[in-house]
Amino acid sequence: MKAAIVGGGVIGGGWAARFLLHGWDVAVSDPNPRVRTQIAEILANAGKSLPALADVPMPARGKLSYAASLAQAVAEADWIQESVPEELALKHKVIAEIQKHAPAHAILGSSTSGFKPSELQAGAIRPGQILVAHPFNPVYLLPLAEVVAGPGCSDDVRDRACELLRSIGMEPLVVRHEIDAHIADRFLEAVWREALWLIKDDIATTEEIDNAIRYGFGLRWGQMGLFETYRLAGGEEGMAHFIRQFGPCLAWPWTKLTDVPDLDEELVQKIASQSDAQSGQYGIRELEAIRDRNLVGFLRSLKERDWGAGRILNQNDKRLAKMTGDAASIDDSAPTRLLESTVLPAWIDYNGHMTEFRYVQVFSDSCEALLRRVGLHDDYVAAGHSYYTAETHNQYYDEVGANEPYYTTAQILMADAKRLHVFYRMHAAADDRLLATLEAMYLHVNTQSGKVAAAQSAATAKLMAMSSAHSTLPKPETAGRFVGQR
Amino acid sequence: MKAAIVGGGVIGGGWAARFLLHGWDVAVSDPNPRVRTQIAEILANAGKSLPALADVPMPARGKLSYAASLAQAVAEADWIQESVPEELALKHKVIAEIQKHAPAHAILGSSTSGFKPSELQAGAIRPGQILVAHPFNPVYLLPLAEVVAGPGCSDDVRDRACELLRSIGMEPLVVRHEIDAHIADRFLEAVWREALWLIKDDIATTEEIDNAIRYGFGLRWGQMGLFETYRLAGGEEGMAHFIRQFGPCLAWPWTKLTDVPDLDEELVQKIASQSDAQSGQYGIRELEAIRDRNLVGFLRSLKERDWGAGRILNQNDKRLAKMTGDAASIDDSAPTRLLESTVLPAWIDYNGHMTEFRYVQVFSDSCEALLRRVGLHDDYVAAGHSYYTAETHNQYYDEVGANEPYYTTAQILMADAKRLHVFYRMHAAADDRLLATLEAMYLHVNTQSGKVAAAQSAATAKLMAMSSAHSTLPKPETAGRFVGQR
Repeated sequence: MKAAIVGGGVIGGGWAARFLLHGWDVAVSDPNPRVRTQIAEILANAGKSLPALADVPMPARGKLSYAASLAQAVAEADWIQESVPEELALKHKVIAEIQKHAPAHAILGSSTSGFKPSELQAGAIRPGQILVAHPFNPVYLLPLAEVVAGPGCSDDVRDRACELLRSIGMEPLVVRHEIDAHIADRFLEAVWREALWLIKDDIATTEEIDNAIRYGFGLRWGQMGLFETYRLAGGEEGMAHFIRQFGPCLAWPWTKLTDVPDLDEELVQKIASQSDAQSGQYGIRELEAIRDRNLVGFLRSLKERDWGAGRILNQNDKRLAKMTGDAASIDDSAPTRLLESTVLPAWIDYNGHMTEFRYVQVFSDSCEALLRRVGLHDDYVAAGHSYYTAETHNQYYDEVGANEPYYTTAQILMADAKRLHVFYRMHAAADDRLLATLEAMYLHVNTQSGKVAAAQSAATAKLMAMSSAHSTLPKPETAGRFVGQR
Repeated sequence: MKAAIVGGGVIGGGWAARFLLHGWDVAVSDPNPRVRTQIAEILANAGKSLPALADVPMPARGKLSYAASLAQAVAEADWIQESVPEELALKHKVIAEIQKHAPAHAILGSSTSGFKPSELQAGAIRPGQILVAHPFNPVYLLPLAEVVAGPGCSDDVRDRACELLRSIGMEPLVVRHEIDAHIADRFLEAVWREALWLIKDDIATTEEIDNAIRYGFGLRWGQMGLFETYRLAGGEEGMAHFIRQFGPCLAWPWTKLTDVPDLDEELVQKIASQSDAQSGQYGIRELEAIRDRNLVGFLRSLKERDWGAGRILNQNDKRLAKMTGDAASIDDSAPTRLLESTVLPAWIDYNGHMTEFRYVQVFSDSCEALLRRVGLHDDYVAAGHSYYTAETHNQYYDEVGANEPYYTTAQILMADAKRLHVFYRMHAAADDRLLATLEAMYLHVNTQSGKVAAAQSAATAKLMAMSSAHSTLPKPETAGRFVGQR
């Protein structure tokens, strides 16, 4: 698949990064002489953060090129994303030029914050391929894309656009009727307007306003939004009760309802200097890196909880797993391959090494994969059975860096009804080099009594069969080793 | 310290929980017959989530009581928090009754969302002890408290109020000049008004609006807020450039500037039924638990990054550590005590047990404590020296639950210039029962070359002296044990 990125600023560059990291080839068209530097910087940020959200390998990165002309950029493109400045005449000119050279099957998405699709479609030779696909900065991390088809674009094209957006990890929000500024930017505008008044009237500085948001309702909104949060304020008495209670406040003259403050040079400078005082100690690239690290933290914690934007990430993992395959072999005449994955950026400590306890986590995941392989799933634990770790021996052989592919294997040293003795190895996939080993003894327990209990399942037989098959393999050199053994 | 909670609904109950969990005694005054149930439910939620944010032990929980009268509740209170419904006449009546019985030194904070402190202070016998301390739901998790002193309250009282709020983990935001609705609620009102229009006009449902927030800008706002986020949109060209570019949009008629939608029964029902469709599959208690789990995830990830609300949590840990003490002994004739702490709620898996890799983390922290004990700090690593873990042997003896106190010890088995051989034990503090052990061999390395290198520091001598002192101790029974040994 090929994407053409028309306009390579912060937003266009973010789109380019998201497409590339999901395996699409990307051609960029932008006359700005700084475009290559800009895209390289955005791609460097994206490469450090987007893959940190995945728990399955990402597809191989697509090919990035800079087109000599708009015609060359859009040739054979499946998706064309327009992110030029917010001037309608300019957008019309660019869209006309794109459509002269673009395939008829391509989707032509516009990143416009404010224009309605009908305004973009007006006068176009193929209005049916044009729609609004409005993303949020940083485009490579935030999943939201507001999709507005407008009257000129068919449901089929819109649905195909949504499918393609999902395939690059985004969540299309189809806006039912086109309006100026779609949905989210109407909120941003309302808050922005109110914030300008607070600064103009010396009620608060930019930093105080940011703190008022990020220490309070901003944290609520990142995971539930407005209405679900208020549903909780209504409590057992319900949403209607809450609105009846809160609604009347709207009639009070709290906010500057009717006025737009005059954005004169004095106010612009006031905001700019307050912002410098607040954030000027960080460079823009540094602040972007901080933002991205924070967003990765939020998104990963939502992912563990399978909630909000984290649920979208889990769905994307499933799609990626289908694309990149689950290549685990089932050949019991060699150590059984369990995990094939890559070292996640989140596992690296500040020294650039994989943190000690993450090795233990990899082997812990390998144990779960082994038990799944023999048919033991969550329902086995729910029924009151489990394997508990009694003791382990770890050896650390080599360092491994972020995004390096690895695989793990298990060699069953012994299995009976009560015990399971396994030797795991973790290898770098590139050169099979041994990274670490873990020898573990598990005991089969009744989780209610907490006591060791004999297992009685087909899985036990399967483990014993694997153990028997593995008994012909050479015993691992360091199995049975004690700490400090010469 | 004693807090009086006047009005025990969602907000008052949240205050009660925050005070109690920070060791304050709390007396609740509320005529509602359901108040005990409500407070118990809120406290149960808070007890599961607030301690999960701490990496040091919390103080012992304060004593909760329900006062027979307002007079009894406020007697000898250091902080009185008023959270009765938003009616000015009612608040005046309650404040007058409070001041009849409260100590003059007590702070009287009001949770009001909208009233100015001057409105609350009007006609009071001691206006100087009244200020606005406006929190955000859930009060026990979100750190923000808007503090508005108004003309009747001195800077001294305001500063003392801020100090007390910090001592219960909150971040006071002093509002420079009193205005209706302080700061944050003006934004909430602006967004709410716009959201009502979107629903009334059938542009979006409650769920679509929530998704438009939580998949996009909500995630940005939870960690940076409005202005710092926009600073990044301006890029290298700066904030003034951004405002000049974005400002003109404000003159466009994007949002419903001038109107407040009529909140008639039809609109109330429309919102309530859309909210039911969106969230009705969850009970209110369940949804609160989901929200709290998500907030803990966000807050912990910010804490690891020492940013935003996470920085406030780290500062609170430092305060708590001073209160709860660091009682590590230095007696080298017994295994050296290293950590004294409690099992954190965040370490518990869904089975209610401490997760395997968290034991490894405890021993890893113990190793760091041991190295600090002999004088090796971050500057040693910065200078290119470090101890790397070569191999470990773990034994898991017993389960341990959330909030259980534990301690760890180290027995140095051998130390020379290149090697350090340590046997760690983790015990439950209540009954000294052994939870787990880890035997570890560390190698001293030059971090530039990655090669083993002889250590040359006073710390080595100290480790060798400890090893010599420990040589008179009985050798740990399982030291030198291999996995599966009978």
